[in-house]
Amino acid sequence: MCAAKRPIGIFDSGLGGLTVLKEINKEMPGENTVYFGDSGRTPYGNKSPETIVRYTRQIVRFLQEQQVKLIVIACNTVSACAADIVRDIAGVPVVEVITPGAEAAVQATNNRRIGVIGTRNTITSEVYIRAIRDIAGPNIAIFQRACPMFVSLAEEGWWDNSIARAIAAEYLTPLIENDIDTLLLGCTHYPLLVGAISWVTGPAIRLINAGRRVADQVRAALTEHDLINPAEHPPWYGFYTSDSTDQFQEMGSAFLKKPIDDVKRVNIELY
Amino acid sequence: MCAAKRPIGIFDSGLGGLTVLKEINKEMPGENTVYFGDSGRTPYGNKSPETIVRYTRQIVRFLQEQQVKLIVIACNTVSACAADIVRDIAGVPVVEVITPGAEAAVQATNNRRIGVIGTRNTITSEVYIRAIRDIAGPNIAIFQRACPMFVSLAEEGWWDNSIARAIAAEYLTPLIENDIDTLLLGCTHYPLLVGAISWVTGPAIRLINAGRRVADQVRAALTEHDLINPAEHPPWYGFYTSDSTDQFQEMGSAFLKKPIDDVKRVNIELY
Repeated sequence: MCAAKRPIGIFDSGLGGLTVLKEINKEMPGENTVYFGDSGRTPYGNKSPETIVRYTRQIVRFLQEQQVKLIVIACNTVSACAADIVRDIAGVPVVEVITPGAEAAVQATNNRRIGVIGTRNTITSEVYIRAIRDIAGPNIAIFQRACPMFVSLAEEGWWDNSIARAIAAEYLTPLIENDIDTLLLGCTHYPLLVGAISWVTGPAIRLINAGRRVADQVRAALTEHDLINPAEHPPWYGFYTSDSTDQFQEMGSAFLKKPIDDVKRVNIELY
Repeated sequence: MCAAKRPIGIFDSGLGGLTVLKEINKEMPGENTVYFGDSGRTPYGNKSPETIVRYTRQIVRFLQEQQVKLIVIACNTVSACAADIVRDIAGVPVVEVITPGAEAAVQATNNRRIGVIGTRNTITSEVYIRAIRDIAGPNIAIFQRACPMFVSLAEEGWWDNSIARAIAAEYLTPLIENDIDTLLLGCTHYPLLVGAISWVTGPAIRLINAGRRVADQVRAALTEHDLINPAEHPPWYGFYTSDSTDQFQEMGSAFLKKPIDDVKRVNIELY
């Protein structure tokens, strides 16, 4: 297969990365894509970094088998715990979600006070603190908060009910009290909760979803490596999961906001 | 090793089964035990039955390697989806958590109106409906509700705060409106949330935690097979997890309400 016609590989611990896939499909409608969601072992956010690394290695081997031309780590937890390992073993360009998010947050802030929310692993790793300081220097205030219940909320479909708002208030009120003007959504599930989150943060705080900017980085990397798909045929989309294909299809269509027809099951632990 | 001195094997998708282990340790203080928690792939409640079966087979093979004399399925989801398979392959007596819970609920109810809560898999399987009707006949009203957020709440440590109460109210109010006098806690995580649950249900509704009765069944099965440990030495307790041993130790001690010293990591997908 001509290298440029090979698909872009995108993976996440589960369905959250579909919010990134949506942006990639929108920005690069000519590209074939393969998505893998590790729904059989989701969520990653509270699991140990060593476990995340083991799972990630298996997923990269699976994507390599699919002959992907570029890998998108559409999961902040993996980007935080294992991005260097993916770069080491991938053999193709790798785009992760931390740097694009950090860049967007730095551009958005006026008062140089940024809030960052994510899973326990992402927050503990302090990867966003390093990424933001690398871009903006030390003279910037960053306030972090792990929001472990947000992924369960998103997967329960409670995107903006009274409980979602109460949980958002519990997690976010201490951040708001630090006078932030920008809140970085450091988990690919969180854009689904934007209703509940903005109900708490109000109009004065800008919410940063890195998905669009990740798509820009994908395009830049493909251009740099001369890998933009020249095909005039409509692209194809592959969906793979480590759990039930029915569940993926049903919930995934809601996340992606378009129907997913065909999902295949993968025994990922054999990779 | 003399058969009776072999340990009891207990497993769960994660830490919830420690609430059952606690009862077994208390009721049979002379027994050695081995506990496996699949924290690397937790939770099981929303995953497909086929995935649960695959994971369960691996765990049973691990427990067999530990030469257990009896297996306790300390997880309602596995009891609902894979108890027959465990019985087929275990080669030792098997105790699950559904029947003991159903028996306790039937004994407790006066008005023959029982509520059952559990994970999505447990509720969808209707295993409690069948178990209760097997014991009490068809002339009994059963009202079910899946409570997928309860496991996340228990693992977040939000056992009885305002959010736990709001979520409990959301899930349980429709059950209460059916005039139940008994509520079966059909998930080994739920006893931790008894504060929030009883805040909603009030004193008139009896909450059924099967743990104690599971311990009774373990004792009966050991007696029947002449496997009660005659040793006068203090017993030993083995703890194994598929994820970080530190996290298991820290959270597990809170669940078990006593310190856990030594936890070992197992690559369960290799079994």
